[in-house]
Amino acid sequence: MGTVYLAIGIHNHQPVGNFDFVFEDAYQRAYLPFLEALERHPGIRVAQHYTGILLDWIEKHHPDFLERLAALVKRGQVEMMTGGFYEPILPIIPDRDKLGQIRKLTDYIRDHFGVSPRGLWLAERVWEPHLPRPLREAGVEYVVIDDSHLKYSGLREEDLSGYFLTEEAGYPVNIFPIAERLRYTIPFRPVEETLDFLGALAERGGSPLAVFADDGEKFGVWPGTFKHCYSDGWIERFFRALEENSSWIKLVHFSEALDTLKPAGRVYLPTASYREMMEWALPAKAIHEYEDFEARLKESGLFDRYKPSTTSSFWRNFLAKYEESNHLHKKMLYVSRKVKDAAARYGDVEAVLKARDHLWAGQCNCPYWHGVFGGLYLTNLRYAVYHELILAEEKEIEALERRGETSWVRKEELDFDGDGHRELIVETPVLNLVFSPQHGGSLVELDYKPTAINLLDTMTRREEGYHRKLLQLAEQKKSGGGDGVASIHDLLAVKEQGLEKKLVYDWYRRVALIDHFLNPDTTLKAFSRSQYGEDGDFVLEPYTFETKEEGGLVTVELRRKGTVWAGGAAHPVELQKAVTVRPDSQELDVRIRIKNDGQDSAKLWYGSEWNFALLAGNAPDRYFEIPGRSLRQRHLASTGAEPDVEEIDLVDEWQKLKIRMRLSPQAEVWRFPVESVSMSEAGFERVYQSSVVLPLFRLDLEPGQVSEIRIRLIFESLG
Amino acid sequence: MGTVYLAIGIHNHQPVGNFDFVFEDAYQRAYLPFLEALERHPGIRVAQHYTGILLDWIEKHHPDFLERLAALVKRGQVEMMTGGFYEPILPIIPDRDKLGQIRKLTDYIRDHFGVSPRGLWLAERVWEPHLPRPLREAGVEYVVIDDSHLKYSGLREEDLSGYFLTEEAGYPVNIFPIAERLRYTIPFRPVEETLDFLGALAERGGSPLAVFADDGEKFGVWPGTFKHCYSDGWIERFFRALEENSSWIKLVHFSEALDTLKPAGRVYLPTASYREMMEWALPAKAIHEYEDFEARLKESGLFDRYKPSTTSSFWRNFLAKYEESNHLHKKMLYVSRKVKDAAARYGDVEAVLKARDHLWAGQCNCPYWHGVFGGLYLTNLRYAVYHELILAEEKEIEALERRGETSWVRKEELDFDGDGHRELIVETPVLNLVFSPQHGGSLVELDYKPTAINLLDTMTRREEGYHRKLLQLAEQKKSGGGDGVASIHDLLAVKEQGLEKKLVYDWYRRVALIDHFLNPDTTLKAFSRSQYGEDGDFVLEPYTFETKEEGGLVTVELRRKGTVWAGGAAHPVELQKAVTVRPDSQELDVRIRIKNDGQDSAKLWYGSEWNFALLAGNAPDRYFEIPGRSLRQRHLASTGAEPDVEEIDLVDEWQKLKIRMRLSPQAEVWRFPVESVSMSEAGFERVYQSSVVLPLFRLDLEPGQVSEIRIRLIFESLG
Repeated sequence: MGTVYLAIGIHNHQPVGNFDFVFEDAYQRAYLPFLEALERHPGIRVAQHYTGILLDWIEKHHPDFLERLAALVKRGQVEMMTGGFYEPILPIIPDRDKLGQIRKLTDYIRDHFGVSPRGLWLAERVWEPHLPRPLREAGVEYVVIDDSHLKYSGLREEDLSGYFLTEEAGYPVNIFPIAERLRYTIPFRPVEETLDFLGALAERGGSPLAVFADDGEKFGVWPGTFKHCYSDGWIERFFRALEENSSWIKLVHFSEALDTLKPAGRVYLPTASYREMMEWALPAKAIHEYEDFEARLKESGLFDRYKPSTTSSFWRNFLAKYEESNHLHKKMLYVSRKVKDAAARYGDVEAVLKARDHLWAGQCNCPYWHGVFGGLYLTNLRYAVYHELILAEEKEIEALERRGETSWVRKEELDFDGDGHRELIVETPVLNLVFSPQHGGSLVELDYKPTAINLLDTMTRREEGYHRKLLQLAEQKKSGGGDGVASIHDLLAVKEQGLEKKLVYDWYRRVALIDHFLNPDTTLKAFSRSQYGEDGDFVLEPYTFETKEEGGLVTVELRRKGTVWAGGAAHPVELQKAVTVRPDSQELDVRIRIKNDGQDSAKLWYGSEWNFALLAGNAPDRYFEIPGRSLRQRHLASTGAEPDVEEIDLVDEWQKLKIRMRLSPQAEVWRFPVESVSMSEAGFERVYQSSVVLPLFRLDLEPGQVSEIRIRLIFESLG
Repeated sequence: MGTVYLAIGIHNHQPVGNFDFVFEDAYQRAYLPFLEALERHPGIRVAQHYTGILLDWIEKHHPDFLERLAALVKRGQVEMMTGGFYEPILPIIPDRDKLGQIRKLTDYIRDHFGVSPRGLWLAERVWEPHLPRPLREAGVEYVVIDDSHLKYSGLREEDLSGYFLTEEAGYPVNIFPIAERLRYTIPFRPVEETLDFLGALAERGGSPLAVFADDGEKFGVWPGTFKHCYSDGWIERFFRALEENSSWIKLVHFSEALDTLKPAGRVYLPTASYREMMEWALPAKAIHEYEDFEARLKESGLFDRYKPSTTSSFWRNFLAKYEESNHLHKKMLYVSRKVKDAAARYGDVEAVLKARDHLWAGQCNCPYWHGVFGGLYLTNLRYAVYHELILAEEKEIEALERRGETSWVRKEELDFDGDGHRELIVETPVLNLVFSPQHGGSLVELDYKPTAINLLDTMTRREEGYHRKLLQLAEQKKSGGGDGVASIHDLLAVKEQGLEKKLVYDWYRRVALIDHFLNPDTTLKAFSRSQYGEDGDFVLEPYTFETKEEGGLVTVELRRKGTVWAGGAAHPVELQKAVTVRPDSQELDVRIRIKNDGQDSAKLWYGSEWNFALLAGNAPDRYFEIPGRSLRQRHLASTGAEPDVEEIDLVDEWQKLKIRMRLSPQAEVWRFPVESVSMSEAGFERVYQSSVVLPLFRLDLEPGQVSEIRIRLIFESLG
């Protein structure tokens, strides 16, 4: 019998902003038992990658773990791999940050384990051909990625039992292709199947190399896997089998393979990730199309043979697919430029180093995309990343640039979000405002700096590829059939009755300072479901803008001459929004002037929409309050209409923040939550994204008449 | 009826090294008549891209053309587009060269036409996501590429009537997607079909933008198109139709569209090119697989619907597919580093500027890849690019670094070709040698500097995807059937009877200093067809190496202990090759020691293979010569065996170069041409690549006995 080399890599990661109990659970159920298994089996040699986020947490909560791990490293059992410290999608962050993040983790590994890592774990295996240069500059010699990447280049299963070389502009990097088959057998199939796979490889001769590398959470955290791996002994059986067959299965570290085995060839890889990721990045309707295509191919028995010739999308498409992912990404690039500029001006002083570290933490990939579980839809992950970016920007860079100043304003016009139009940024010691004149003159970012939170960090409700399945499930249930024959993959749990009714989609981005003109028969329910008639053309269309500075106050004036359809006629209406910030105050002052520009009198029903994203909806410490009045249902996910409101508060005791909205004249206020329907490991679920506050004003305007409305937001830190 | 915007772009290009008559023909049949048509129709507004290579040629041969073109630019009829001056595949050259090449063409356009181009023609539309940064840094605002690129991101036909924005690290670039349909209707279908397409778009409303952009050679150079476009008046009809329908078809320049139309959205594009290119880049067997897949999809009626969900490869894969393309690419990177280093040391002095320009000319894409026509298989294109690179390296940089020195040697060990092993480079005033110890201790590059030619610039014969068709054609012909029903696409001409018999494939790379041990019954014919038994293991396996310097001479010693199967037994054999160069001479001195390391006597038949690539095979001014002896058939593509040769010359009067090979002891010499079977516009054809010279030595070695062979190459410039 021939021999086969086997290289094993394990990637352990928790996102920035994940809950402490989630870290602890993963530690107890996956990271620790795996380490213990390695300690019991000194012959089992593996490479391990821990993200910096996880290492920081472990160092703080279980420092002994690091010592035990270091002992395994020292005895040559564990090879440590590097990566971006905060696990960014490497291709989408600037090269200087790629280098910095990798060097930070490499340094950590050197300091704590006394070794220099030679290989890199590529977050989500998102590859682009320009990577070899920055990787090599950061000292990386090899990367472990999926064999699908190589298949997209035309290589086939039989070509893949070895490692490959690639380069960019002459900078070489070695590529270890992960055998897809092993990602399915380990740990989900009986150990024998893995041995059979390796045995077949060994038979072929020529010292083939097989690579298994995958998430460490598959060993204990994924549903059912703790029992399977540990209580039922899969890991023990696997390790023992490897030891017993060590005569022909040679465990090697990746770096050993580099030093002792010849490369299998040269390869160039297109933009790719693992197959599922490339499907998720498609627009929803294209996902349906791709799914239909795959189904048709499977029907005709063509899929297995021609799988490598089918494709879907690529990672960066998430930025085109989700306005919110794009905003996060462009905010990150904006902050990265600020940090770079500060470094150029002041050198690597402490404030710059701190800012850079917050920036890097704000590059953690998890909330930048969404496959089927969590990601972008999870408010705590988005919050954490915005929080880090705002800290980088404000706490540190400002500390440097504005030493001692307490009253200043910065204005900038630029195409912040890469849509070809200029946005307007206004920054004070208390607030960051990003206006989008092009898109309804709306406010698309509102950072409250004392708590470093983006109050507009919500999600627009949009169709997802998997919503089709939820509707099918509901349909099946109604007709009472189908359950018996559903395959395990289709057995999706629905965590709530009637969830399919929550599938409503917005036609505009849910941000703030959005100008609505409603039809008189519009109901709160219809409005909250985005199923009503908008009578104006102010939500999506462009506003002109100018900024004024007077007496230390900065005012942004947004103006649009549009049309409102009311009473069976089209009325020319001019709308002007003047947003004033006082550099030294906690207030945002909005004066809205609505002018009937036509020849006829007009009855208008105007509303100014504000989305406030305060992390939790139905929680006792987050609620609405109207001074002197009791709200029936006052939590932040509540729905209701209140008449004659002069003042309404949103209180978040957990974040120690109060937002008071003062209205003049007093107005009816509608409130309702924006809730997305997304998937988690446990099934379809509803996720609270933000609370809409919509003050509504009934205006009766003669020709030429102007109505003035004032909305003041007063922020208060309860800390 | 609604209106539709139409932007037209025309790309005109001829490769570095193309024959003068080809330039002139294209000028007379395409570039000039198109210009004249524009002059007659001032209402027809188009963007035009001329590569720098073509502009240089036109300026020299038809300077009046440039004046006439400038007049059209001045009256706003023609928008000039920039690009890499020498039309490189942009993603595969270093960023500094990207910038330099674009700026050179931009400067040329400014100087000659008085305008600053805002858009770039992307050579072969080879896109990688890292491009926006260098493009923007070079002042490029937009790029015109195929709609297939956007479809790979999940966009569909109906989304594509406009332009898009993309970015990398915050550097934005606008993307105009070329409508694939228009590439088929213009100029190949009746004008009405184009109008119908535009009419259908206009009906949809919303000011859609349609883009047509394609090669200018489609209008006159491609077979049959001169008659179609000009004699039969297609262009005239097309232009007149556009003028007559100008009430609803609005011709716009790309730059106008940027200034006046809103972008259609944000988009991120994966590595892509036009569909055919992505298939060509696949390994041959994967091309078959992909073709089969496409055929199956067409059979089942799935192809049209799911085309965007099928994929093939990506451009850089050519570098993995063709050793020769890779060598050219790595040579280019190597020279680019030399130029960069020289610039860092000496600044942009004249020699550096000249070297840089030769380097850029050596980046012209045409011989770096191969689809179905020409490209990499055309010796004149490969020659031209090596020529430029050697000029950059040697003539210019040496002039700077070695002022006045006539005798020097430079040695360097590095992984030149990115295969994970170190190659050895030796350079003198006369020669550049690149040894590959890992691959049979062979010589993979041999530049003769006085004429700036790489004498080993040949092609290994390998399977191409389209060879299958040649075999099918031969099969059909033999069975006498099929001709009547062959579709136009399958009607491939075969320029030579029995060409399918020339389909032989090499199992090793055709270079020099290759050590063969032949079986006693091997014939010249069998050897020349790579269909013989190799009895040694010296061709593909590694050699150790060291270099020695003594008395001004440099010697490279390559050594391998291998095995030769002879007389029914395996004999351990040690082979040592000492290659000596004298820095001040025109000689290459090779001493080969073959030692019987075994216990038995061994009869060995040893041959040292040399491929000389001298551009033309069957030409009266390129021939073999054996002093004092007449060769029956003496041209460089001739086949024959000559006994007892002491000296054999290869003479190339056209290049003014003689290569004399002196043998000691005298030996039988086999010679035969390496000829590839590739496709041209005119059909399948045979292309002379190089002349193999194989001196053969019969050795009868007792145990421990050593045989010594000496091969001297003496180069002589006949100029």
